[in-house]
Amino acid sequence: MLLAIQEGKKGAGFVSPNPLVGCVILDRNFNLLSEGYHAKYGEAHAEVNAMRAVSDPSYLEGAHVFVTLEPCAHEGKTPSCAKALANHPIASVTYGLEDPNPLVSGKGVEILRAAGKTVTQFSGLKAELEELCEIFLVNMRLKRPFVALKVAASLDGKIARPDGTSQWITNEESRAYVQYLRGCYDAVAIGANTFLQDNPRLNPRDARFAEKRSRVVIFDPRGRTLNQLPSSQLLQVRKSEDVLLVTGPEVAKNSSVAQVHVSLKDGEFDNLELLSVLKSESIDSLFVEGGARTYASFYNSNVVDRLYLFTASRLMGEGLHWTSYFSNPKFDLLDLELQKFGTDSLITGRPITSTNN
Amino acid sequence: MLLAIQEGKKGAGFVSPNPLVGCVILDRNFNLLSEGYHAKYGEAHAEVNAMRAVSDPSYLEGAHVFVTLEPCAHEGKTPSCAKALANHPIASVTYGLEDPNPLVSGKGVEILRAAGKTVTQFSGLKAELEELCEIFLVNMRLKRPFVALKVAASLDGKIARPDGTSQWITNEESRAYVQYLRGCYDAVAIGANTFLQDNPRLNPRDARFAEKRSRVVIFDPRGRTLNQLPSSQLLQVRKSEDVLLVTGPEVAKNSSVAQVHVSLKDGEFDNLELLSVLKSESIDSLFVEGGARTYASFYNSNVVDRLYLFTASRLMGEGLHWTSYFSNPKFDLLDLELQKFGTDSLITGRPITSTNN
Repeated sequence: MLLAIQEGKKGAGFVSPNPLVGCVILDRNFNLLSEGYHAKYGEAHAEVNAMRAVSDPSYLEGAHVFVTLEPCAHEGKTPSCAKALANHPIASVTYGLEDPNPLVSGKGVEILRAAGKTVTQFSGLKAELEELCEIFLVNMRLKRPFVALKVAASLDGKIARPDGTSQWITNEESRAYVQYLRGCYDAVAIGANTFLQDNPRLNPRDARFAEKRSRVVIFDPRGRTLNQLPSSQLLQVRKSEDVLLVTGPEVAKNSSVAQVHVSLKDGEFDNLELLSVLKSESIDSLFVEGGARTYASFYNSNVVDRLYLFTASRLMGEGLHWTSYFSNPKFDLLDLELQKFGTDSLITGRPITSTNN
Repeated sequence: MLLAIQEGKKGAGFVSPNPLVGCVILDRNFNLLSEGYHAKYGEAHAEVNAMRAVSDPSYLEGAHVFVTLEPCAHEGKTPSCAKALANHPIASVTYGLEDPNPLVSGKGVEILRAAGKTVTQFSGLKAELEELCEIFLVNMRLKRPFVALKVAASLDGKIARPDGTSQWITNEESRAYVQYLRGCYDAVAIGANTFLQDNPRLNPRDARFAEKRSRVVIFDPRGRTLNQLPSSQLLQVRKSEDVLLVTGPEVAKNSSVAQVHVSLKDGEFDNLELLSVLKSESIDSLFVEGGARTYASFYNSNVVDRLYLFTASRLMGEGLHWTSYFSNPKFDLLDLELQKFGTDSLITGRPITSTNN
């Protein structure tokens, strides 16, 4: 199942709004036959790719299929995977998570059992299985886009110097990983302050995503970016239709990029309405890169699904802390993972509001 | 050489004021013959222990010795290791670092060469070799005790709540590792605030150090701990002669524990005098556990040799940041290492003042 999870990760960035799914097939003697993953939205699912990767169909006789998510029951862009598996002479299917869609949950299992297959839900690796399709799970369960905050801070948690400048806190190795992460999300997002201060490009410069549409969202309640947008670096590296400006209702329509209006409350966006608007723009996952007010806006609305905290090995002293505007900043990170990038470290996990404080 | 470094670490906490040294011997065909380390001050050095561990002395014929530090030339508590090696029919000696004592540096090599051995300095693993004997190197080069700061902070860097309480920020796994680290140092140190606030025991509860004398230093410029000391938890778990109270010159002599007086400057200790006093008390390495003012005092005097920053996965919000009293807090951590303890992370490295800021 771990192998299937690793396989599933290969589709990151290309399957939205579908989940990442990986599949491994063992032959009747439990030797590895093939692997497959859902590589692109609208194309074959993991199970089908794994079956296609078997060199001789006769090897599937009595084979054992391991798949990270319950095989789908319904016919959508592609045929039902449960039916495809049912039509092959495999012996058993072991799946990770149940389909989170209550309308179809369990239906894939029924189809397989009706065809005489042994079907088992895998009992371990729950955290890893959920992490693999965390975007999809949030989309299905909470009916909103998945929100990740990416913070690049000094060892004392500062994200900007007192004069507001912030570039190059973290090193090249972590920035390269950020390029990869950007590609895994439907859109990268920043606040107006960060746009005006950094004039960033924000493009996923990771070659794995060269063919992917890369989108940027700018949160700008008061329309402060309107003047600078047309001449920004952002519009030099990106098509105007790939940039989405989110403004308050009073802000005039701009002519450089796509724009949506979202209600304000005390000068800040109503984040649930904002996320609902993004979803209608086919943005199912959002990679939020700053600044402090934008982090706080999402955190304070309790809609942060993952935190990526990159920390340099350097103290900054005076400056803006990444949690400066958090109200009642109490959470735990679950399923913590650590990574080292030369002299930088990355802590990532799923924030949940602390109860034990 | 990596194996020799790992071997050397086994002596941590017991060799002061000697360096940690590890040794590996390969036979003439480069098969592993034996390992050895300097296990206790006053007892045999690594090379001798490794030679003793060879089951049949004839195996040493043509053998190759790898040792983390240049074999000692002088006769001290134990005979010269260079001479001991010279007296055996080994073929070669590869050593890591030169002896940092300029009076004897190179002398061990001379003795071995004069005896016809091939002697080579190992060219790699410099950082790891230096880290192994970092306490000794600071003692020799800077003529003062080695100072490590241990910080246990929330994800947003806070070490105490607004009301001053601070216990249980990090989890049991990291606290167990702290127990081990305490044992690796000659003494654990805290400031008066932390003593009064936490009433800590600070004992190295790691079984590996059960036989070791464990000492505590309290920094108390104004003598604020005098009343509480006799009834403190500290004196319930420790002998009074193992607690050293450092006070300003004006503070009266207390009758519960050992006490030294150190000059004050603007109400704070002269840290160079303080370290020199600790050295005269046979404290060659110090594990400083807080609080914020004590960290700052050492940091601001530029005498911090290692930082252990434990970070919980929980935000605290309001509270005291570990760098709150640092003046000009700019440093880089060199030779960064990361470790994960369940939901906590540890970043450790050697602070050097940043020039590129």
